[in-house]
Amino acid sequence: MTSPFEKMKKIEVINPATEKSIAKVPASVDIPSIYEKARNAQKQWAKQDLQYRIDCISRFQKELENKKDALALTLTQETGKPLWQSLNELRGAGLRIQFFIDNVEKYMQNETITQEEGLLEKIYYEPLGVIGNISAWNYPYLVGVNVFIPALLTGNAVLYKPSEYALLTGLKIESMMQDSGVPKEIFVTIIGDKEEGEKLLDLPLDGYYFTGSHKTGKYIYEKVASKMVPCQLELGGKDAVYVSENNENLAKVVEGVCEGVFYNNGQSCCAVERIYVHTSIYKQFIDLFYEYTKSWVAGDPLDNNTMLGPLTRKEQKKVLQAQLDDALFKGAQAIQLNIKDEPSSYYFPPTILANVSHEMTVMREESFGPIIGIQEVEHLEEAISLMKDTDYGLTSAIYTDEYNEAERLMEEMDTGSVYLNCCDRVSPNLPWAGRKNSGLGLTLSYHGIRSFLQTKAYHIRF
Amino acid sequence: MTSPFEKMKKIEVINPATEKSIAKVPASVDIPSIYEKARNAQKQWAKQDLQYRIDCISRFQKELENKKDALALTLTQETGKPLWQSLNELRGAGLRIQFFIDNVEKYMQNETITQEEGLLEKIYYEPLGVIGNISAWNYPYLVGVNVFIPALLTGNAVLYKPSEYALLTGLKIESMMQDSGVPKEIFVTIIGDKEEGEKLLDLPLDGYYFTGSHKTGKYIYEKVASKMVPCQLELGGKDAVYVSENNENLAKVVEGVCEGVFYNNGQSCCAVERIYVHTSIYKQFIDLFYEYTKSWVAGDPLDNNTMLGPLTRKEQKKVLQAQLDDALFKGAQAIQLNIKDEPSSYYFPPTILANVSHEMTVMREESFGPIIGIQEVEHLEEAISLMKDTDYGLTSAIYTDEYNEAERLMEEMDTGSVYLNCCDRVSPNLPWAGRKNSGLGLTLSYHGIRSFLQTKAYHIRF
Repeated sequence: MTSPFEKMKKIEVINPATEKSIAKVPASVDIPSIYEKARNAQKQWAKQDLQYRIDCISRFQKELENKKDALALTLTQETGKPLWQSLNELRGAGLRIQFFIDNVEKYMQNETITQEEGLLEKIYYEPLGVIGNISAWNYPYLVGVNVFIPALLTGNAVLYKPSEYALLTGLKIESMMQDSGVPKEIFVTIIGDKEEGEKLLDLPLDGYYFTGSHKTGKYIYEKVASKMVPCQLELGGKDAVYVSENNENLAKVVEGVCEGVFYNNGQSCCAVERIYVHTSIYKQFIDLFYEYTKSWVAGDPLDNNTMLGPLTRKEQKKVLQAQLDDALFKGAQAIQLNIKDEPSSYYFPPTILANVSHEMTVMREESFGPIIGIQEVEHLEEAISLMKDTDYGLTSAIYTDEYNEAERLMEEMDTGSVYLNCCDRVSPNLPWAGRKNSGLGLTLSYHGIRSFLQTKAYHIRF
Repeated sequence: MTSPFEKMKKIEVINPATEKSIAKVPASVDIPSIYEKARNAQKQWAKQDLQYRIDCISRFQKELENKKDALALTLTQETGKPLWQSLNELRGAGLRIQFFIDNVEKYMQNETITQEEGLLEKIYYEPLGVIGNISAWNYPYLVGVNVFIPALLTGNAVLYKPSEYALLTGLKIESMMQDSGVPKEIFVTIIGDKEEGEKLLDLPLDGYYFTGSHKTGKYIYEKVASKMVPCQLELGGKDAVYVSENNENLAKVVEGVCEGVFYNNGQSCCAVERIYVHTSIYKQFIDLFYEYTKSWVAGDPLDNNTMLGPLTRKEQKKVLQAQLDDALFKGAQAIQLNIKDEPSSYYFPPTILANVSHEMTVMREESFGPIIGIQEVEHLEEAISLMKDTDYGLTSAIYTDEYNEAERLMEEMDTGSVYLNCCDRVSPNLPWAGRKNSGLGLTLSYHGIRSFLQTKAYHIRF
């Protein structure tokens, strides 16, 4: 006789730094009934004063701050992110929440458009209803708050599916939401893998917000298109940087770009994935880059000196190795840096590739790991042409002291964000939007509040 | 031996008032090459000063005004719309164009968001690129300008597919665009039926804007979803009006509602399609409605006294007849009004149905023709409940002298537009948006300018 408990589907959580199982979390059951409860509760939530919802979210923000050490530890344990980066992420999430708290009232306020004798025309902003948020593991707090904070503030209910690789963090978010006064029907985690994700796609939700890969994003969009509700996708990138010959302080440029490459082990949609350097400074750049990268020691993510932890998903090593092999076969020169006391097989050494070309996969396909190709270019126009030749459209950057060439490059880029003298940067004030294979729709900025609202036009005759 | 000319696919245009063929228009060939030319020309168009594009569109607006008599005649000949309504439509289109001219600069202007020591954060607004506009026959000018005017002003190229039932009007629009200085590659008509429409869906366009039926809209959205570009759908409705007992001037209410029902033969997405009347005034309302409808004589659309022309598409008669038969079978009472010297078989007499119920298809499925059910309700809450029970979400209206009950109803409605003491109304100042089966995305208002732009976030470090 088998115990009924054994039949329960569970998702196992592995610590990538130790390869040990640290939890087994039961998958959500009866997802349609979770949905029904959210649907019924949402109207009441939307009818609350905005200040009531702001108060809940402010308490959630304070919880994040108060519990940051424990939360960072959990995040590091399940994703392998160095502890100091986990703390950074929590700090950043707090700032983004503050942006939404400060701006939500203005952008969900009714607008009086026309007020004439006998005619009043107004725009009201209403929540969408119940939305699905299928989230990512690389920055579970940051990519999470982009969606669920404005969604909740504007009066929506959220069915939140954390990634299988950041499950414990997802559960902590849910529990802090409840402690902060958000009704348990209004913010609910859906625990599971693809199977439970499919159930979410089958529901008649009022909007879908996904962060993850292009492949999955496309699948989700095609799957939910027939519902004709908003579907926002934040997908990958092949984010390029051009370093012009006009840089007085090249060492400082190198530091910025190197961090853009290796921060969070390159597991970021806006991580720098290819670098183009003007021929006159190419050799110098490579040398400086190699010197600086040596400080990015890979090791135990709990150690405060560790810059690079293990990869969150071991399978990604195959992708990185294949890109490396392809580059070497096609004539690239590679340097792989050390890993300190390699604690598990989830590690991939930080890898720099010189003498790369546009034919190599490392310069064309998403890496999502600590590998970088550095290519020599003759001039700005060559850099522009190479940077534009991609199916992705998330970010692009230029480092230069000459504003004119920066302007020229930024204007030409077909990406949602462009950077001058910075990279791998997300600001709560600015819209976060990908073009082409990098996605659709936008989060953050005032536009990212309106993303969770729908208009109602009032035509009033007296 | 067959002449090569005979092989050319042609679309025949029938005058529904006379059933005579009035033109045979060759279908577009080599649509991919039309697209390539638009793609190449778009960058230059986008780089022009905004004032240059405004000047082109202003000339187009003047062309509409100068040629209004000839244009109205063509529109009436191919759609059957009474001539005075064709002239009205042209006047309305001119006003909408003025709204876009007046507002485009403000809403495509770059915004400086953060300006701190060493950091500048800006939002730029850029055109999408080459967009497809698959348009409708019921208001070819009005639903057309909602899309192609802001699209062109903001720097996009437009592949414009007029409906097969408003082809000649589509060609006139194209020719006036060229006369106004819009390059012939930037605004191009795609002539054809479903076959050519499919070719448009196959192209890698940067956005799709469709006006038409829910069935076709859903098909288009599923077809283009994998491209992950904006897709806006303006679909049908089952627009409801509630007439409360609190109406001092019921005769005036009746006039407004009756026009909302029968204007353009009911062939409008926001035409009134069901009426709910408070029981205390139900009989009086029916009597007044019948009296007023008698003035809506159906006849020759070229006759200035004609209120109702033929249907544009004869097949719709079957839908209307089936709704009538169903209603009669289920116990409704019907009055059909006269048609003056029935000139063709495209006519359907204006039909009023009393004693209708929620089980009848005439109260639930889109009619898109001159038939209306008028249902008695006990109170406001019953009206709200019936009005909400629909898969459509375009408009809803209430006529009352009591603002409180209007507010209650308008708040409850899950429709993109709500009306108090008016109906069947579109304003350029307000967003036009459908919910549920009525569509996705929005046109008109400042939002309807942004619908044709994408953001680019500038992160600038000095």
